[in-house]
Amino acid sequence: MNLNKNSERKFDIIAIGRACIDLNAVEYNRPMEETMTFSKYVGGSPANIAIGTSKLGLKAGFIGKIPDDQHGRFIQSYMAGVGVDTTGMVLDTEGRKAGLAFTEIKSPEDCSILMYRDNVADLYLAPSEVDEDYIRQARVLLVSGTALSKSPSREAVLHAIHLAKKNDCLVVFELDYRPYTWVSEEETAIYYTLVAEQADIVIGTRDEYDMMEGKEGGTNEATTHHLFENQAKLVVIKHGVEGSFAYTREGATFKAGVYKTNVLKTFGAGDSYASAFLYALFNDKGIETALKYGSASASIVISKHSSSDAMPTAAEIETLLEEQK
Amino acid sequence: MNLNKNSERKFDIIAIGRACIDLNAVEYNRPMEETMTFSKYVGGSPANIAIGTSKLGLKAGFIGKIPDDQHGRFIQSYMAGVGVDTTGMVLDTEGRKAGLAFTEIKSPEDCSILMYRDNVADLYLAPSEVDEDYIRQARVLLVSGTALSKSPSREAVLHAIHLAKKNDCLVVFELDYRPYTWVSEEETAIYYTLVAEQADIVIGTRDEYDMMEGKEGGTNEATTHHLFENQAKLVVIKHGVEGSFAYTREGATFKAGVYKTNVLKTFGAGDSYASAFLYALFNDKGIETALKYGSASASIVISKHSSSDAMPTAAEIETLLEEQK
Amino acid sequence: MNLNKNSERKFDIIAIGRACIDLNAVEYNRPMEETMTFSKYVGGSPANIAIGTSKLGLKAGFIGKIPDDQHGRFIQSYMAGVGVDTTGMVLDTEGRKAGLAFTEIKSPEDCSILMYRDNVADLYLAPSEVDEDYIRQARVLLVSGTALSKSPSREAVLHAIHLAKKNDCLVVFELDYRPYTWVSEEETAIYYTLVAEQADIVIGTRDEYDMMEGKEGGTNEATTHHLFENQAKLVVIKHGVEGSFAYTREGATFKAGVYKTNVLKTFGAGDSYASAFLYALFNDKGIETALKYGSASASIVISKHSSSDAMPTAAEIETLLEEQK
Amino acid sequence: MNLNKNSERKFDIIAIGRACIDLNAVEYNRPMEETMTFSKYVGGSPANIAIGTSKLGLKAGFIGKIPDDQHGRFIQSYMAGVGVDTTGMVLDTEGRKAGLAFTEIKSPEDCSILMYRDNVADLYLAPSEVDEDYIRQARVLLVSGTALSKSPSREAVLHAIHLAKKNDCLVVFELDYRPYTWVSEEETAIYYTLVAEQADIVIGTRDEYDMMEGKEGGTNEATTHHLFENQAKLVVIKHGVEGSFAYTREGATFKAGVYKTNVLKTFGAGDSYASAFLYALFNDKGIETALKYGSASASIVISKHSSSDAMPTAAEIETLLEEQK
Repeated sequence: MNLNKNSERKFDIIAIGRACIDLNAVEYNRPMEETMTFSKYVGGSPANIAIGTSKLGLKAGFIGKIPDDQHGRFIQSYMAGVGVDTTGMVLDTEGRKAGLAFTEIKSPEDCSILMYRDNVADLYLAPSEVDEDYIRQARVLLVSGTALSKSPSREAVLHAIHLAKKNDCLVVFELDYRPYTWVSEEETAIYYTLVAEQADIVIGTRDEYDMMEGKEGGTNEATTHHLFENQAKLVVIKHGVEGSFAYTREGATFKAGVYKTNVLKTFGAGDSYASAFLYALFNDKGIETALKYGSASASIVISKHSSSDAMPTAAEIETLLEEQK
Repeated sequence: MNLNKNSERKFDIIAIGRACIDLNAVEYNRPMEETMTFSKYVGGSPANIAIGTSKLGLKAGFIGKIPDDQHGRFIQSYMAGVGVDTTGMVLDTEGRKAGLAFTEIKSPEDCSILMYRDNVADLYLAPSEVDEDYIRQARVLLVSGTALSKSPSREAVLHAIHLAKKNDCLVVFELDYRPYTWVSEEETAIYYTLVAEQADIVIGTRDEYDMMEGKEGGTNEATTHHLFENQAKLVVIKHGVEGSFAYTREGATFKAGVYKTNVLKTFGAGDSYASAFLYALFNDKGIETALKYGSASASIVISKHSSSDAMPTAAEIETLLEEQK
Repeated sequence: MNLNKNSERKFDIIAIGRACIDLNAVEYNRPMEETMTFSKYVGGSPANIAIGTSKLGLKAGFIGKIPDDQHGRFIQSYMAGVGVDTTGMVLDTEGRKAGLAFTEIKSPEDCSILMYRDNVADLYLAPSEVDEDYIRQARVLLVSGTALSKSPSREAVLHAIHLAKKNDCLVVFELDYRPYTWVSEEETAIYYTLVAEQADIVIGTRDEYDMMEGKEGGTNEATTHHLFENQAKLVVIKHGVEGSFAYTREGATFKAGVYKTNVLKTFGAGDSYASAFLYALFNDKGIETALKYGSASASIVISKHSSSDAMPTAAEIETLLEEQK
Repeated sequence: MNLNKNSERKFDIIAIGRACIDLNAVEYNRPMEETMTFSKYVGGSPANIAIGTSKLGLKAGFIGKIPDDQHGRFIQSYMAGVGVDTTGMVLDTEGRKAGLAFTEIKSPEDCSILMYRDNVADLYLAPSEVDEDYIRQARVLLVSGTALSKSPSREAVLHAIHLAKKNDCLVVFELDYRPYTWVSEEETAIYYTLVAEQADIVIGTRDEYDMMEGKEGGTNEATTHHLFENQAKLVVIKHGVEGSFAYTREGATFKAGVYKTNVLKTFGAGDSYASAFLYALFNDKGIETALKYGSASASIVISKHSSSDAMPTAAEIETLLEEQK
């Protein structure tokens, strides 16, 4: 698997889905009830991946609906500031708000999030707001699972995938499962299956694949067998501290471990992993190295206070890889 | 009008309605897009009045629905901490969240609020959650208009008023009009009228009375004529920097001006006004002095960063009154 | 109590609320599963009362929202055909439908109704669609309880009552309690109480007053005591086959029994009762006779196939009264 | 294309989707406003096809949610009475109602339908209510497009298709497009495309394919090109009075005309067409003859009063084919 097709296109990657606001505890190592101050960051898995890949040097774009308020304008200007193309962003005209995630950092092992996700702007992206001309300029469309949780965002993403396939743009599906906003696990499984069967690359944790399969204790063998019967060429399955695996349609398997770090919180690991993994693939470093880039990038982000602002540069990743070789 | 009836009751005042979270800009004199840190306070008009009257020494209680999460626990513990009885609070069991108000402080004249009010816990207080035994212990029930904006909170408040009147508890109606959450101005006018016709004391700005009357440019004379034909004994109408007026059913009129202060923001003025005005009435200081207490209290709060935490003590108010006599 | 005030006004009575479609079993004395044909009639308590009073010779009008479809046009033309003024009817512009009531007539004692009441047009009457000039032309505004069950119809009725009182138009409240469409009994009790406290005449069954009072086994004495403390002048309480009672604010009590008839079904009894009772009051026949008119009219309607089309003339009622004197 | 695979299975065909009530005008050739009586029939495209194929001698089953009321019991008993297996039917437990279709028959050319489709039971079939063991017993799963219009019925159908494919059961997609209940044409196009790409046989009118393709004036060539790139083996496209076409993946094309009849109304043509077409395929009569069976069956139904009760037997179809040979 390499991603060097369509190299003349304007964007290496366009991510579609939510861009929201993280409000991270300034005073931590305590319950949120006692946190009196919060710092504001851009958040949301696909937004983080657009930011992460852009900071690594890829040409990244973003499709999503943002509120027409102070938080929406912050999101747009922050993302533009780190080099993400924001011309695919759509302003909500119905007064909907940005999703919020208040993070509580009690200890490295005990973090929780208090989510505000009712009627958030990002879930109101409509199919008509996804522009075929924009997608046609991308080599990869990055789809995050949460955007499938509600209509019309669900249909906007299904439509975007249809347009990507029609225009020879690879589809990467980051499972990014979040229980809130989904009506039921049953419905999650239906749409995750539908999209994974159409994706070229699928990335997720073992738990997320189990959710997709509607059962616990699934095996990587069964998962990859099912996906390779459909359209997948590459499947990445993360097993937490035990490391991550990549499987190719041709039958190869790769594995990487995790890197030591001074963990502050667990948020943001998945998004930084995906960003660096895709960066390495785009740069022809091979799947095994790409797994290492993903893993190292995750290690860096979980040692820092934010998910988006902490996204590392390639040099930072490479330094860590060198140190812990 | 005095409030010294039922002095044997456990509570001077029980407020009913919303208790939420204010997130006030730490870096101000700039648009919120550029504010990167926010401080957390308890907010919401009736919560602020419960806090304000409690800090002034009245025995205050609160009826309202709060979320079963970190923000809900903060609200409960903060209010209990300043002496408010919170046994009338009900925990939401459906995962609803606290309302949020992000405040933007561009300049003393240019403040705005970014509200999160979709499906907030406070608007789900149900009539069955209003306890007659609790209301029977109060001398005054303080109703805030915003709690009328949606069912079932609307019916909970109508029911609480019914119980108050049945148990010889005076009803004070603070108009507290906020356009969000109301379906239409027409509906606002209908419920404001319905409740104002049943209230013993009504407090609001001239603009709020105009909203209640469904027209612009209403006169204090017409407003008081209508309310005194119903059950009101005392009507307070605030005219911003021009000062405030109190009218009694017996025909007396009182007026107070405003106090000079170093304005930081305009939030919280109404709640601090109501708190100090009621405090003075409970302490038999007479209506004219009560207007001054209200006005002085408002001046103090608008010079400070929060609405709730900044509620003054009686000594602070009296110092200001003395200084600007 | 007489109703001869404002005799110069164009309408004796204007009813507000629902006008729907009854689909009555053509083949009866069997479960509805085996009924293969249905006859169409206009239905809905306030529509039936407008029809009933109009057929008795009163000048009747109607305020309500009807669908812009074949059923709506049938309702309008049928009501106009029996003399009801339909200029206060409003067309729904959102594609909402008429409520439907399929009636099952298994036996005179065993009737049930299969209701279609989801998103029906009548419950979407808005306050702005109630015209003060129209209400000002009426001597009596007839309010039916079901119209209070949902917003915005609820607010439209509250607004109509406000306009009626402002314009010296008497308010008659027919409790007409139907469990469907109400969210809870608690909410029913709140709004029934609110409106009954403002009404000049209240008419209902003992069970309906119990619903209003939120308890079982209420007494007529307690009910009338409460209502006469507010604005009621006349209260009618129906006790089924044991007859009906009327109480006046001045302390008089009247009673009437029921008339023998060949019962086909039990639908429509209440509406025909109210129609004839009000007709007799308007014609100065005295309360005792008015109760008889109501009772006789109900006897006639329950022996016939429809509720609206079967509404008797004054001559039919008087013949029955004469026969069973 | 033949359907003789899996001949040992218990059911030739299981239809999934809505079963509702048709209320057909007894007095016709007039606007519905003047129709005073209605006859009751079972209706709904997939229910009609289950009835139609069962009357033709196929072993048919049905999956759908019906109300727990008189209409629901009528639907179940009528369908069981004509031989349809109803063990896959699920009772709604939330008080939802059967969909209704009041038909207006002004003239053979001018028919309209007044639909009641708000919160109808059939659209609440949940994925968990679709039983894999039941689908495994079928040779064909018949999916009707309307069931895709809303969640959770949409997901139930997507899940049923997934189970059908997993269990080697052919998927027949009858487009059956009805504008009501769909949020937008855009959303219709997305789900029609998604399902058509997974179906083995697709049947619809040229207009319905245009809806699926999101444009007017599509060609049969483009439509079949797209579907044969996916999983379709047989595509039927109906052009009204100009006849119908069948295309096979192998490249063959077949055409049939229409049969003369005394048209009463246009309802029910599509369902009777599909029933007879599939019957002929199951009986190895070849595609060309199957088109004739479909066309003849449609001619018979549009000359009669109902859609379901009028479904012809094989003998009736063959007589017509013989007569108009």
